[in-house]
Amino acid sequence: MNAIILSVGDELVLGQTIDTNSAWLSQQLAAIGCDVVAQLTVGDDQNAIQQAIEESVGRCDVLLITGGIGPTADDLTRQALAAAMNVPLELNDQWLHRPQAFFRKINRDMPEMNKIQAMIPRGAEMIENQHGTASGIRFQSQIANRKSEIFVLPGVPKEMKSMFQRDVLPHIQQRTGGAIILSKILHTFGMGESWIAQKLADLMKRDRNPSVGTTVSKGIVSIRINARYPSRDQAQQQLDATEQQCRAVLGDLIFGADDDTLAAAVARSLAPSRLTISTAESCTGGLLAKMLTDVPGSSDYFTQGWVTYSNKAKVDRLGVSENILNTHGAVSEPVVQAMARAARRLARSDFALAISGIAGPTGGTPQKPVGTVCIALASAKPAPSGAGPSSSDSDSTSRTFLFPGDRETIRDRAAKMALTMLRFHLLDKPLPF
Amino acid sequence: MNAIILSVGDELVLGQTIDTNSAWLSQQLAAIGCDVVAQLTVGDDQNAIQQAIEESVGRCDVLLITGGIGPTADDLTRQALAAAMNVPLELNDQWLHRPQAFFRKINRDMPEMNKIQAMIPRGAEMIENQHGTASGIRFQSQIANRKSEIFVLPGVPKEMKSMFQRDVLPHIQQRTGGAIILSKILHTFGMGESWIAQKLADLMKRDRNPSVGTTVSKGIVSIRINARYPSRDQAQQQLDATEQQCRAVLGDLIFGADDDTLAAAVARSLAPSRLTISTAESCTGGLLAKMLTDVPGSSDYFTQGWVTYSNKAKVDRLGVSENILNTHGAVSEPVVQAMARAARRLARSDFALAISGIAGPTGGTPQKPVGTVCIALASAKPAPSGAGPSSSDSDSTSRTFLFPGDRETIRDRAAKMALTMLRFHLLDKPLPF
Repeated sequence: MNAIILSVGDELVLGQTIDTNSAWLSQQLAAIGCDVVAQLTVGDDQNAIQQAIEESVGRCDVLLITGGIGPTADDLTRQALAAAMNVPLELNDQWLHRPQAFFRKINRDMPEMNKIQAMIPRGAEMIENQHGTASGIRFQSQIANRKSEIFVLPGVPKEMKSMFQRDVLPHIQQRTGGAIILSKILHTFGMGESWIAQKLADLMKRDRNPSVGTTVSKGIVSIRINARYPSRDQAQQQLDATEQQCRAVLGDLIFGADDDTLAAAVARSLAPSRLTISTAESCTGGLLAKMLTDVPGSSDYFTQGWVTYSNKAKVDRLGVSENILNTHGAVSEPVVQAMARAARRLARSDFALAISGIAGPTGGTPQKPVGTVCIALASAKPAPSGAGPSSSDSDSTSRTFLFPGDRETIRDRAAKMALTMLRFHLLDKPLPF
Repeated sequence: MNAIILSVGDELVLGQTIDTNSAWLSQQLAAIGCDVVAQLTVGDDQNAIQQAIEESVGRCDVLLITGGIGPTADDLTRQALAAAMNVPLELNDQWLHRPQAFFRKINRDMPEMNKIQAMIPRGAEMIENQHGTASGIRFQSQIANRKSEIFVLPGVPKEMKSMFQRDVLPHIQQRTGGAIILSKILHTFGMGESWIAQKLADLMKRDRNPSVGTTVSKGIVSIRINARYPSRDQAQQQLDATEQQCRAVLGDLIFGADDDTLAAAVARSLAPSRLTISTAESCTGGLLAKMLTDVPGSSDYFTQGWVTYSNKAKVDRLGVSENILNTHGAVSEPVVQAMARAARRLARSDFALAISGIAGPTGGTPQKPVGTVCIALASAKPAPSGAGPSSSDSDSTSRTFLFPGDRETIRDRAAKMALTMLRFHLLDKPLPF
């Protein structure tokens, strides 16, 4: 079972748009055991599209085409498909009804040029588009005794993805023998991809089922598990078993799964006990607070933060002593500890995170090169035995890191490491690196 | 003059990596007037690579291949090229010298498997790789009377790009007749792409030279101008003339060019007069401060900011009166004006920006739906005539916006709009929307 993906659009061959559709479709197909043998891209040129269809269709079970089915003069995929299949384009009343209804809904007359979107190659079926006027096309071809399914979808990712999952995937899955593929992605932060891959070497052997692979994006190393079995129960059981094996190896390094983010994981740990966090940032300039408030509902645990970029702001706003600043420098553990304690006290929060570092590109010294970042976490002092609930006095811990990369990377890693320090504190465990 | 781009790699056909090389190469080729007729991607499969080369090479003047020239068992591009060209692979002593030198430099022995990287198809030339061990390959083929140039480059973007610009582009440029293409990109924020395109309709006619096109990314609508002429002087002159025409139409909507960002444009306006800015943020949660400190050297104009996410923080930190909060609600112009005035006063900055809004997904009301954002700018009161330099009393202006999109989009647009309000204030002009 194999597939070819054909993307159509001048913006792609001109390099103005990066094609993300092909990678997404390839992942979807790989997950159900359908091999993508080639991805092909051509511009809005009817002959080029027709030639690409003719050359591809005899070589694959499934030909997925995206783009070129809009209403304008440079949308030529339907014409090219009809020509390649040697059938006429016909106006279909049922299809005409769709764009008409779409325009009625937004209280506008359908422009005459949208009529082309109701033309389909004879013998084709319609794939409904719930988000736009460009319906998709399904066509079954038979060339040289090879039956191929051709699917045409819009190039707009949101429309394409919903149509693929609802109306294309089930057809392909049927042909792959109905195997069930279940997937899970586990996320880690703090260790490099090669370290993770080495730890998981046994599980990552090629041809293992469930398969285990790693990817990395902005410091987050993710582990993708795909389980492919005849029955859903079996797939789920094996997926769970492999997930447990990954968790046994990596433990608390795993902060979440699938669409999870580090900030959401921290939010989840704070929420049940109604714990709150405040921030005091220097080099990250608000990024840590921004991450914490990326999460909907973050007002439950985050009330305020300071961006004390200058030394004077650290003194005026957080009462950091000029003596500490002069003795140790702004990028030092005593300073971030003072910042964190003050933020916690002023915000009356359960925790406070403080960051000070050298994000570059300038400002580094041999002792404190660019990438040096100090992070502190303030929390309540453990209550003396026999005393009441936790005291309001701050205890604080701090660490110094050296992050590689450019200004943007250093700031991103610093904010993520601060979240990670809080996460391990909430787990009541030491930072594992 | 046309080209085909062939990308090789299992990670691409599995959808694990998004192919950004093809778009980059397409842009480079478009800029020198070389049409990309197709982009093609296959996995690490020698037969598939060979077939793709055989089918492509007779149809184009230039075949650019990336990927598959590393030292491991799944790097098969050189073998496929030799087979497609019907020549043997030969060990080349001069080439062997390269990876050996690379490993000597990092004080390690060259692994035996790197020897394959010194094998080249007979008749090929080497393209030096200054960043890694995978040298590139240049091969001139002649099939059915069509002379084609084949270039093989590594898949690692950094290595590929530097080799392409140094050793591939000049060869291709020679064949395109030596025309000079100069480009400029102008950036705007605040109006939609279709509005900009309508304003520039005359300049955006197809086949115009210099050509003018628009793209949009995260609310920034950019205008790309490409001028293609026989001489550099002519290209520069025509590029400048078209840039002036765009500027005549769009005026101050254009905030910068090429790699510029909105925050950098604001920084540029503040720097000469040593003006400073502080921030007070609610719904953007630190994003505005983060954008201002994205710019290296931002400590010159940014000293501090507040993230006052809760009402209590607005009262405690910025002295916003509970009365105003209760009467108008946290998302209101009186509140952001109070926040901005307080931030300016406490930070002793020349300006302060304050943002409060409903980023969603919940929290909207019929009167203030999700996307409602109030932004205020505080600045010095104009001094009464005859008085000394600007007084320290705050004057403040504010606006309410309704931004469409999800939480991330609303927060992004709000922060960018705040920067835009400051930018127009520094220009001493009203906001044009």
